[in-house]
This record gives sequence, structure tokens and C-alpha cells, in this order.
Amino acid sequence: MHRRIEDLAGLVARVLTTRRATIALAEPLEQEDWVAQSMPDASPVKWHLAHTTWFFERFVLGALGFEPVDPRNDYLFNSYYESVGKRVERAKRGLLTRPTAREVLAYRRTIDERLAALEGSPRLAEVGAALELGLHHEEQHQELLLTDVKHLLSENPLAPAYRRGHSPAPRPAPQLAWRDFAGGVAEIGHRGSAFSFDNERPRHKVYLAPFRIATRLVTAGEYRAFVASGGYRKPELWLSEGWAWIQAGAHAAPLYWRDGMHFTLDGERAIDDAEPVTHVTYYEADAFARWAGARLPTEAEWEHAAADATPGGFVEDGHLHPRVAAEGFTQMLGDAWEWTASAYAPYPGFAPLEGAFGEYNGKFMVSQMVLRGGSCATPRGHARTTYRNFFPPSAAWQFSGIRLAKDGA
Amino acid sequence: MHRRIEDLAGLVARVLTTRRATIALAEPLEQEDWVAQSMPDASPVKWHLAHTTWFFERFVLGALGFEPVDPRNDYLFNSYYESVGKRVERAKRGLLTRPTAREVLAYRRTIDERLAALEGSPRLAEVGAALELGLHHEEQHQELLLTDVKHLLSENPLAPAYRRGHSPAPRPAPQLAWRDFAGGVAEIGHRGSAFSFDNERPRHKVYLAPFRIATRLVTAGEYRAFVASGGYRKPELWLSEGWAWIQAGAHAAPLYWRDGMHFTLDGERAIDDAEPVTHVTYYEADAFARWAGARLPTEAEWEHAAADATPGGFVEDGHLHPRVAAEGFTQMLGDAWEWTASAYAPYPGFAPLEGAFGEYNGKFMVSQMVLRGGSCATPRGHARTTYRNFFPPSAAWQFSGIRLAKDGA
Amino acid sequence: MHRRIEDLAGLVARVLTTRRATIALAEPLEQEDWVAQSMPDASPVKWHLAHTTWFFERFVLGALGFEPVDPRNDYLFNSYYESVGKRVERAKRGLLTRPTAREVLAYRRTIDERLAALEGSPRLAEVGAALELGLHHEEQHQELLLTDVKHLLSENPLAPAYRRGHSPAPRPAPQLAWRDFAGGVAEIGHRGSAFSFDNERPRHKVYLAPFRIATRLVTAGEYRAFVASGGYRKPELWLSEGWAWIQAGAHAAPLYWRDGMHFTLDGERAIDDAEPVTHVTYYEADAFARWAGARLPTEAEWEHAAADATPGGFVEDGHLHPRVAAEGFTQMLGDAWEWTASAYAPYPGFAPLEGAFGEYNGKFMVSQMVLRGGSCATPRGHARTTYRNFFPPSAAWQFSGIRLAKDGA
Amino acid sequence: MHRRIEDLAGLVARVLTTRRATIALAEPLEQEDWVAQSMPDASPVKWHLAHTTWFFERFVLGALGFEPVDPRNDYLFNSYYESVGKRVERAKRGLLTRPTAREVLAYRRTIDERLAALEGSPRLAEVGAALELGLHHEEQHQELLLTDVKHLLSENPLAPAYRRGHSPAPRPAPQLAWRDFAGGVAEIGHRGSAFSFDNERPRHKVYLAPFRIATRLVTAGEYRAFVASGGYRKPELWLSEGWAWIQAGAHAAPLYWRDGMHFTLDGERAIDDAEPVTHVTYYEADAFARWAGARLPTEAEWEHAAADATPGGFVEDGHLHPRVAAEGFTQMLGDAWEWTASAYAPYPGFAPLEGAFGEYNGKFMVSQMVLRGGSCATPRGHARTTYRNFFPPSAAWQFSGIRLAKDGA
Repeated sequence: MHRRIEDLAGLVARVLTTRRATIALAEPLEQEDWVAQSMPDASPVKWHLAHTTWFFERFVLGALGFEPVDPRNDYLFNSYYESVGKRVERAKRGLLTRPTAREVLAYRRTIDERLAALEGSPRLAEVGAALELGLHHEEQHQELLLTDVKHLLSENPLAPAYRRGHSPAPRPAPQLAWRDFAGGVAEIGHRGSAFSFDNERPRHKVYLAPFRIATRLVTAGEYRAFVASGGYRKPELWLSEGWAWIQAGAHAAPLYWRDGMHFTLDGERAIDDAEPVTHVTYYEADAFARWAGARLPTEAEWEHAAADATPGGFVEDGHLHPRVAAEGFTQMLGDAWEWTASAYAPYPGFAPLEGAFGEYNGKFMVSQMVLRGGSCATPRGHARTTYRNFFPPSAAWQFSGIRLAKDGA
Repeated sequence: MHRRIEDLAGLVARVLTTRRATIALAEPLEQEDWVAQSMPDASPVKWHLAHTTWFFERFVLGALGFEPVDPRNDYLFNSYYESVGKRVERAKRGLLTRPTAREVLAYRRTIDERLAALEGSPRLAEVGAALELGLHHEEQHQELLLTDVKHLLSENPLAPAYRRGHSPAPRPAPQLAWRDFAGGVAEIGHRGSAFSFDNERPRHKVYLAPFRIATRLVTAGEYRAFVASGGYRKPELWLSEGWAWIQAGAHAAPLYWRDGMHFTLDGERAIDDAEPVTHVTYYEADAFARWAGARLPTEAEWEHAAADATPGGFVEDGHLHPRVAAEGFTQMLGDAWEWTASAYAPYPGFAPLEGAFGEYNGKFMVSQMVLRGGSCATPRGHARTTYRNFFPPSAAWQFSGIRLAKDGA
Repeated sequence: MHRRIEDLAGLVARVLTTRRATIALAEPLEQEDWVAQSMPDASPVKWHLAHTTWFFERFVLGALGFEPVDPRNDYLFNSYYESVGKRVERAKRGLLTRPTAREVLAYRRTIDERLAALEGSPRLAEVGAALELGLHHEEQHQELLLTDVKHLLSENPLAPAYRRGHSPAPRPAPQLAWRDFAGGVAEIGHRGSAFSFDNERPRHKVYLAPFRIATRLVTAGEYRAFVASGGYRKPELWLSEGWAWIQAGAHAAPLYWRDGMHFTLDGERAIDDAEPVTHVTYYEADAFARWAGARLPTEAEWEHAAADATPGGFVEDGHLHPRVAAEGFTQMLGDAWEWTASAYAPYPGFAPLEGAFGEYNGKFMVSQMVLRGGSCATPRGHARTTYRNFFPPSAAWQFSGIRLAKDGA
Repeated sequence: MHRRIEDLAGLVARVLTTRRATIALAEPLEQEDWVAQSMPDASPVKWHLAHTTWFFERFVLGALGFEPVDPRNDYLFNSYYESVGKRVERAKRGLLTRPTAREVLAYRRTIDERLAALEGSPRLAEVGAALELGLHHEEQHQELLLTDVKHLLSENPLAPAYRRGHSPAPRPAPQLAWRDFAGGVAEIGHRGSAFSFDNERPRHKVYLAPFRIATRLVTAGEYRAFVASGGYRKPELWLSEGWAWIQAGAHAAPLYWRDGMHFTLDGERAIDDAEPVTHVTYYEADAFARWAGARLPTEAEWEHAAADATPGGFVEDGHLHPRVAAEGFTQMLGDAWEWTASAYAPYPGFAPLEGAFGEYNGKFMVSQMVLRGGSCATPRGHARTTYRNFFPPSAAWQFSGIRLAKDGA
């Protein structure tokens, strides 16, 4: 990657601050929780801590000629970079009881010290772009660490909490309203020199038909009405693949709803009807929208509309689920990832980064749907309106929610 | 479905002609070939013959109050209409040794007689749209009958031919050239009152960046060069899901190439380098394009470009593979289904048909890619430039080929 | 195989008679029924007709230097002889639409003519043993043809009958009684020069504790009582593997009982309480016995007891289920295969036949249970008291039933 | 269970000593190693520690009316007792990050204190048999803990050692010789009032043909010769199911041999040709025997012969693989579990224990083979010549080896 970023000042310090925040996220857990892997899609906490460290070692320090701390780390902690070489099978990350947590933390410290020593180095500019990518990569894994841990704890019959938080006083959600957009030729995609992933570029024109978009996310209460109306038993509401998913898994509610309770990072609690519904698959989001006489927005509609929204979201520490919506056109950033009707595909003129970084986003552009907006588990400052998250339609372990749209006049 | 079609004259006759053509396609086969099912995606010939008949019985004659020939046919020959009810599991259609071929042919005759009797009926207009849909449905199954049989015969160690054809004299393919389009706001989608499927509507505006599109399909010779260059062993050329598909299946060539030979409906023969390559998955089409320094066109680009192309394709009886390209901008219709870079999704303003017909297309709009153009197995007159075919990215048993595109100036 | 059999007189004629009987079994079926394969364990009728023919061609005519009719038949119709070479995957026999039925029948005729010409040949003695094995092999496939067809027809929602028979007048089963045996050193296994399979030899001593054995098979009525008592919902009655089999398949009755009806080769009919229960797995036989306060006999107990039994069984043409028991110690031969408590293992001193015939029985001696007695589908004369049939404990598509035993005084 | 055991003196003390030994086995490991589960058949160390504790709590203390420490432990730590109720799915034991190791150790201490307090209690006799069973159960899990950890560590690309031991000086294995037995009526099975599992009883007569049995186990060097001779590529040497196992898994050597090295609890080291081969499946043991012109002994032969053998085996701490054989008829106890040719089945007159303990052994009596002799990982004093271990034929993660036998004169 040869992009030279303009502003190196403070970059190393921001990297180190971000990396300390990762450790802080792991601390409320028991040591045992760091090891286990609850499904192939999720990784152990310890692996997240090691992999993000390896990312800096391999792509920043490696580019500067540092000897690796242990050459076997390429095999242990490479996620999916074919250009780097072979690696531990994804589904077997939970078997890596060694290196131990203590060793992984020592590895982090060593790499952090080497990164700290780059401050003021004449060679910093050479790796500025990789450092910056590493920072955003670290932030992505902060969110994954939380959602992967949530999945792990949810599998435990004891339903342990990640961390007990202080819940805000309950309040009702505002009435759902619609925001109208006239459409026409619009522009989406990232512009300017600030950081973005390659998949957000280039900024380009799209043509939008008139559309309406809901002013807030669908609430748990609204979703409960869908469930209560027999939504999961009516094939006419579902995509064919979604209906097959229901049959195969006997699904009848979102992932973490069970017996009328909601498993959260705070432990099990009653479902709060005013909160946004989260942890739904694309199939569920799509079926709910059809039931509601609406549809999901495309990612272009979403991004176009986002310019008008009140900056929102991003719950504070200690409250690890999305907040009840405020009045106005809101919840577009930092509440729940919003399934869009758009499959994940390259933008016109898309060019992946060179080298291994070209594998970061581009090679996943099939069989996945785009989600927008960032969730309550997304680090503040990480999300932006051009950000394109993507998951297969059956994924539900992220804080994925629903915003409705309709064709306009 | 309440659309009243304008021109009923000759519709019944066209239906009956089309249905005779279906039988003609089954005739070169042995009786045994009518029964077997080689994979869940493919259906037995006998099932195609019965299902298309049931479609007319259920949706045309049923709407007019006819008693069913046998009420159990709803269970036996319903494909995927949830609103009609339960049905034989897709993967078990090959176990339906009864009703026998003789009985299925008798069923066809009975229904054809009832359809023939509609000519001149005052109630014809009520079912005109259903009759017309049934006609196009029958044509779709004609193509599937051929591709399903091809798959079945390919599984036989004896490699039997469907029908020995007369091959044209070999000739080279013209040089690949590029056709430039300036882009801007364009319109795609079906317009006018002639028949189309619901997924082709409504006609709507899109914004296209400048692009170039290849004047002909990729040839088998070009694809052989990709294979010979080690294309199937280089992960950097593949989508991540495609690379996993290679590993899981040890794939190293298109579906019907084996040991340097090409299994065709004509039996095994040498690979003709000048012919379009066919029976590739989306993964292979995408990887080839990347190797060639190009990409696949979006469906909007394809449809926009198609207006300029020479009407082509549709090989005559007795030659059941795509012909070598002529000079010019060609092979856009009737040669091979062309994988596009577009996931199958609703057009802005899409409204599925009412009732069971609403299940025809709309419920498949996830996890599939759009193919355009029609193949050598598509009935002449069935394909059109707005036609949207769709298959999962791993499907290869259709005559699916590759047309390259590039970003324009 | 070098065993010279003593009595060649009439052997060729018996082979040909037996082979005509195979064809007669296929005749009540429709042509379509000859093609399909309903599960990997079952083979198509057409394949049975071809494989048994190939067996004679390969092992009898081949040993005499005949050119093969078509060398590809080794690949198409070899069942499991590794020493002969590669073959069509077992689960794909239903895809062999070619050779056609007509061609397979022609193949049979050609081989039958060559076999007929052996009569009086000076070289007949060389292949006498192979001819005799082929005859018994043909008889085994006669039974498999019936049970495989039964399974295929049972998968058809139309529940077609193989052949309508004339049912005897219903009558009650006699009271179940017990026959006592004192045990001690006994001999089992085949003796003498008459034909037996290698797995029945050598005759050898066993030590038997005193035991009792039931005078007849368990009836459908007795089994219904087990079902009605909640037998399939009580884990304490089941082997652990059997309980897992119930959970995985939601089993609640024998294979062909559904909605209170019994699917038979005669079509669906009411369950006859007096008939022996058939089509049970080993798990079910074992659980029933536990529920009844009994156990299954070992194969040594069974064979020892069989000497005392009235020769019985073997229903006549046109009645294709086991008959109601007569009074006395009966139903030991020709009614239902009786699951024994013995795993299939070599007898002390067992020596498999030489060459390919060594694969006939010996290589299956793990993970299977022995069944004794022959069923109503076994050709008369094929079963004998030393005969060892074997199937995995989950198999139920044979006419497998239950005889109870108990420890003696 | 109502059996009153005769000698209660010292029983509680022996239980507590045994339980301390379990902890000692877990101590060389890192905390992380306690959590992970490498396959459904293996359990995490922490789970072993908790399950064995639960066994005493549930069946000893529970019978005396103690309140459970936490009623949820029945769900968490029940292994397979259907009569106790539902439980965590076997394959998900590695997801039980809670209770933590610290909590599980506290649970052990609590239960150990309650058990200690039984000393001198007037009610001790009531639970004597359960206590004794618990002790032997604890010993079984000591061995499983080691073999499960070995499997886990073997999955780690770093190939970590469980514990570095002091290897004895290498020495050659003695020549393999044969021991002859005349056969006839013999007795096997446990006799007397000392502890045995229910499956070892009752002692009963068997008839043995004359046989010979090898004086020591097959060595790694002998097995290497089998491998080098192409043993894994010759179907004629294998049971059909074993050959399928080779194809499905591309097996070419015993479980822990890779690239000429042997993964042991001591880490990777060169294969010691003189050591017994271990970690073979039944398929491999059977194929090796056939290659060697021999066979496996039946369990009756083995037990009959064992009376003549020198008491051997049971390596000392710090040497965790079987020792090289001494001269004489040896290695019958405490070296490697020896696959027998006998399927696991009830002895004549077998009666399972009453209540939940009846599930301990009896319900597994299908689809498994008996192994005899105990291994280097078996606690000294746990094995005995009547002991019947059992595993499916594909299991290799125990220290399973091979002793040859032959028919006698």
C-alpha cells in the first residue's frame, strides 16, 4: 500500500490509545472466556488480541524490516490473507490454548513498544497508511470482540453477563414517521482525504427514484407484534431462502430472544419494547418489512438520506444495547447496523488496495448484504455515513436492526 | 393475477404449439432417461412434462372451475408454490416412478384438450394472462429439460449423447474488441404491453459511469489459456467464496471439461477453442475477468449496451452448443447466459404479481446473481434484452458464459 | 476359488431356472420402477438384473477365457470387489439410465446362452463352484430386489403396490410360549459338502448357558402395545445409539407403519396384529425385548434351538408378507429375518475364499449384527439354519423381525 | 444401587486420595488448556474436574439427602444419564467458560469436605457402593483427561508438551514369540467380591478353540514396516468400513505420527521403533494383523491367556508412553489398550445395575469393540484382566495398540 497519508502527527499515539481500549474491553471477562470459540464465525478474545497485534507486526513493522517476534505467528494469527500464506483453520481458533493469554499480552506489549518507538522516526511516513489501516482494523475487532463474546456467553446455560451496566430509565419510543426524498442523480461514496476503506470509494453518481425512509429503527415492540401475528409461520412473508432457514432451524424469534427474555451483554432481562430490535438476520429484516407494507432501503438511499439525519447513537460505557430513539430523524449512526436491500458489490471504478491489503474487502463481494450505520458496539468515531459493513443474510450475531423504506410519490 | 392481456388471438394455438415442442425435446431420449434426477437442482424429464401441465391445470383451468384430473397432482407436481400447499421434496423428484411416463403423457393430452377447448370461449379473457405466463413457463422448462438431461447424461460413465448433431465446419473466432459507452442517466427494464416477467418491470432510470463492453463472449480457447496459466491455483484471482469452492470440490476446469474433452449434448468431443466457454460458475467468470484485466458487466450496463448489438444466436436444431461468434458486436442473445456483476434484486418500484404468481420470481431475490442474454438452449423468441435470469454463484449446469467489461474513459 | 463341487449334474439348469425367476420378480413393475434408487443402500431393479449377470460373466465365463460383452461393464456393474477395480459410486446407481432396460435384458440373454452352452462342457468342473456361488448370489439379489423396490414404492406419495395378492383369511396368533434349552457345549456352523457361504464355516464348538427361546416371532399387535405404552419416548428402554437414532429421525414406529396403516408390497393396508412385526431396526428389536422383560437370542442360541423347530415359512407367490404363526415352535425359517444379539464376526478358524470371492463376506465383519432365519422374501431353498445374514443396526428395509429369548434356569 | 460392599474401612480416604491425584494431573497444564474441547468425543479438563465431582454429589451425597451446591450442575455436568435429565450437548462442553476453573475447584473442595465428613458416619454403608463406583469413575476420567489433553495439544500447531519427562535409555524390543493355549471350556468374567463394573459379570463358561497369542505388543517398528509396504493403499488388507475410513480421511499412519515424528505428551519426538505402536483404530489393528498373517484375539482368548502373563506395565510419572517390552509373556496390563476381535456385548446372564448406574455400561453395547489390558495412562490399580473397555472402531485417541493371535494347532 503506497498511499501516503497527509497527517502523521499523533497517529502513533492514537494507535496506542486504541489498542489500550481493546484490552479494556477484554478485562471484564474471566480468563476462561478468552479461550473459547462458540462458532466458526466468531473468534476467541485471545485470538482477537493476538491477531490485531500480528496485523501491526506483519504489515507495519514487517515493512520496516523488523524481525518477527515468532515466525510461527504468521500461521497462528493470520485471518484470511492468502498472500501471507497458510493459517489455522478458522473453526479451530478455539483450540489454540497456546500461546497463553499471558504470552499474548506480552506479545502485545512488545509490539506496542516497537510501535511507540516509531514516533519521530524518519521512516514513519512509509508506513503511515498501514498504521492508519491497522488502527481502523483494531476498532473493527473491538466490535467483533464484543459480539463474539456475547455469542459465547449466550451459549452458556448460566447466561452470564459480560458486564452489569446502569440502565437508563425506561421511556417510550417516538412515533415512527417518514422522511421523503425526491431522488434524481445523487452522489455516494467517500470523498476527501480522511481515512476510509477501499470499498467506500470512489465517490460516484447514482440515480435514485423518489423514496421515503423511516425516521427511526424498528423497535422490539413492533417486532414482537410481527412475531405475535404469526410472522414466522407465514411463508408468503419470506424470501424462499429465509423460509428454508426457518424450517431448518425452527426459528421463531430473533437470535437472543428466548422464553420472552432477551439475552444481552448485561445478562438476561425483559425485552424492552422501546429499544430497537437487534440481532435479526436479513431474512427477518426483509420479512418484517414486507409484513409492515414497506421494504428495506438500498444502500444508496440510506447514504443519501443520512446527510439529513441528526448525528446520534454510540452509547456510553456501561450500557451495551442500543438506546431508545429520540425525536426527529435519528439513529442513523451508532445504534444498530441496518440491513439494506443491497448486495455487497464493488462501486463503479472500485480498485482494491495493492498487495495483501487488497484482500481486506474486495474478495468478499459476493453472497453478502450491505449493512449501514454502526451499532452501539461500534467504537465512537469508527462509523461514518459512507461505511459499508457486510454479512451473509443468515448472520445475526452482530447488533443488526431494521430501518424501513418505501417508494416515494 | 388480474392483468388483462390485449391480444388473445392465437394465444391458445401458441400454447399448444409450444407444448408440442416440449414433447419433441424429450423424444430423442430413452424412456429411462425420463425418470432419473442427477442432483437436487435438476428435475427428471417426466417431472418437467408433468409440472408444466399441472401449471396450466392449476392456474388456468382451476381458475375456470375445472375439476382436477387427480387432486394428488398438487402434491406431486407443485414446484415451490407455498400458497398452493405442501409438495414432494425437491431432491426426491427422481423417486416418482409413478405416475408412469404413459400416464404423464395421458395427463398432458387431457389438459391440452381442455386448453384447446378454450379457443373461442367467452371466458378466455379471464385466464389470458395466466395462459401467457404458462406459455413462457413452458419455454423455461424446455431449456431446463435440456440442461438437466445434460447433467444426468454427464454422470453416466458411458457418456451418452442426447442427440447426434451436424457440426458446422470449424472456423476461428474473431478478435475480441471493445465497444464504448458514455454512460449517464439511462433507462432499463421492460416497457410496453408485450409479455415480460414481473421482475423485468418497471422500466426505470439508472446512472451509468462510462464503460466498455466486449464485442463477443470469451472463447473456450481464451479460457484454456487461463487454466493453463494456473488460474485455478492462484487465490489472488478469486473471490474468497470461490476459492473455498475450489478447495472443497478440487475444481480445475469448467463443469463439463474432463481430460481435455468436452461433454456436450452431442457426446464427448474435443474442446473447440473458437466456441464460447460455457458451464462456468460465477466464481469462474469473475476470476477469469480479473485474470484478463477486466471485470463482468453490471446488468444495467449489459442491457444498455444490448440495444446496439446485432440480433444473434439461437442455434438451429441439431446443434446444441453455442456457435462461434460472427464479426461485430454480437452474441448478446441466444448463445450463452452471461453472468453479470449484479446480484438479483427488485427494481425500484417492483411489485410482484398477485396470488401464487407472486412467488414466481420475487421470493428468490437474495443470494443469486443475474445472468443475461439467453443461451443456445433457450427457445427462440423466449429471450429478450430485458430478461433477468438468476442462479446462485456456484451453479454451472446452465449454458453460462462470460462477457468482459471495463471501466470507460 | 478352487473348491471342486461334487455334483455338477443339473447345476447349469438350476442356474438358468433361478435366473428366469429373477426376471419374473421384475415383471409386475412398471419400466420406470426399474431405474430409480431410493437410497444408497438400495439398488435399482435394472442394476440388480445387470449386476447378477455380470457376476456370472466375470467369475464364470471370465475364468474360462470368454471375451467380455462390453469391458465397461466391470465399471458399471461391479458392486464392491476392490480386486476387480473401480466402479460406479454406490449412491449413483440410479443415474445409470443407460444401458437401458432393453440392453440389460439383451445382456442377460447373451450371458444365459453362454451359460447354457456350458452344459456338458469338459471345463464345467473348473467353474462349478463359481457357478454355484453365482446361483446363491442371484437368489440373494432376488430378495434385495423385492426389499429395494418396496423401499422405492414406499417413498412415492401414491403408495403404489408392487403386486396385488390374495390375502389369507385373518386368524389370531397363538399364545407366545417358551422353549427351554439346557445349554452346555454345542456345535454350530455348516457341515458337510452342500453349499454354504464361507462365513458359515467351520463348524465349531460353543458353550451355551441354559436359555429359553420364544416359540414364535413377536407380532405386530405385541409391538403396537409397546408403541402405545410410550416405548419410543422412554430412554431407559434403548441403547444409547438407538436413542440418538430416535432423536435424529423422530422415529415413533417401524419403518413402514404410518398413520395407523402398514405399507406393504400389496399397497397400504391396516396393520394385522397377528402377523409378525417386520422392518424393525436392531435398536427397536433390542428395546422391545427389554420392554418385554426378555432379550434377543445370540446367534449360537438361535442356531442351536433351530434344530428343534418345525420347518416353516416361505409364503407362496402372491402373498408378500410373513404369515401368522402356526402352533408349536415355528417361524424359524422363511418368515422374517431375526435380529440376534451377536455382532457379525468370523467363526474360529474362519478362512475367506481365495481371490475376489474372499471379499464376498469377510470384509464386512465389523459394525453389523447377525440376522437369522430368512424372510418371506427369501427364495424357498435359499435359507438354512446356519445362514448368517448381517446388516448395520439401523437397517430396517429388510423383512427384519424379533424373536425373544431369556436366560434359562 | 443396593449392593452393600463389605469393606468400608479406608474407602473415604481412598476416594480423597484419588481425587487429589486428578488435580495433580491437571496441574502441569496452563489454565487455558482446561477450557477447550478439541472434538465431541473429548472433554475439557475443567469439565472432567467438575463432572467427577458432580458424580459424587449426585449419587453419594444426593442419596443421603444433601442439598445440591447448585441445582444447575445437574444440567452442566451430567454426562449421559437420561434418568437424571437433560444436559449440555456433548459437543458444546468447551463453551462452558463458566463456572470458571476457580469456581470448579471450589466446588471440588466443597464436595471433598462433605465426603470427608462421611468418615465414621453411620450412613456410610448406605452409599458405600456408590462411593466405590465413584472412585473407579474418577480413575477412568484421569485417563480420559490425559488422552483428551493429548488430542487437544496435538491440534495446536506449536505442538506443546503436556509435561517433559525423563525418557529411559533406548533399548530394542525382544523378538516376538507365541504362547500356545489348548482351549476347551474356560471361564471368564469377574469373580469374588472385589470391585468390578457390571459389564465384567457374571463369570461364565466359554468354549475356546486352540489358539496362540503373541508374547508382546506389536512395536512401532513393526507397524512402520506395514506402512512402508504400502499397507494403507491395499484394500485387500482392510475391512470394507476401514477402507472407506481411509478414503474419507486420507489416512496413511496412526493418529499421532506425522512427517516421521510422533506427537506425545512429551511433545514431538522421533518414533521409537521398539515401543508398542499406539493410537491405532480397530481398522488399523485388524489390517495390520491380516498383513502379518495373524488376527486379533477375542476377548475370551485374551482373558484366558492373561492369567499366564507376567504382571507388567504402568509406567511411572514422567514417562507418558508405553515402555519397551521385557522378555517373556508380558505387556498384558498397563501398556496399551489392546483391540480385541470381540464386539462389546452383554455376558450371558448380564444384569445392569439398578437406577441411573444401569446406564453406566449397558446402554453402549452396540457398534463398539472391546479393548483389554489398560494403558500407560491408566491409573495403577485400575486395570485388571477382566476389565472391558470399549470404543467405536474408528477411535484412536486412546493409547490403543495391537496384540496378535493365531488359530492353534
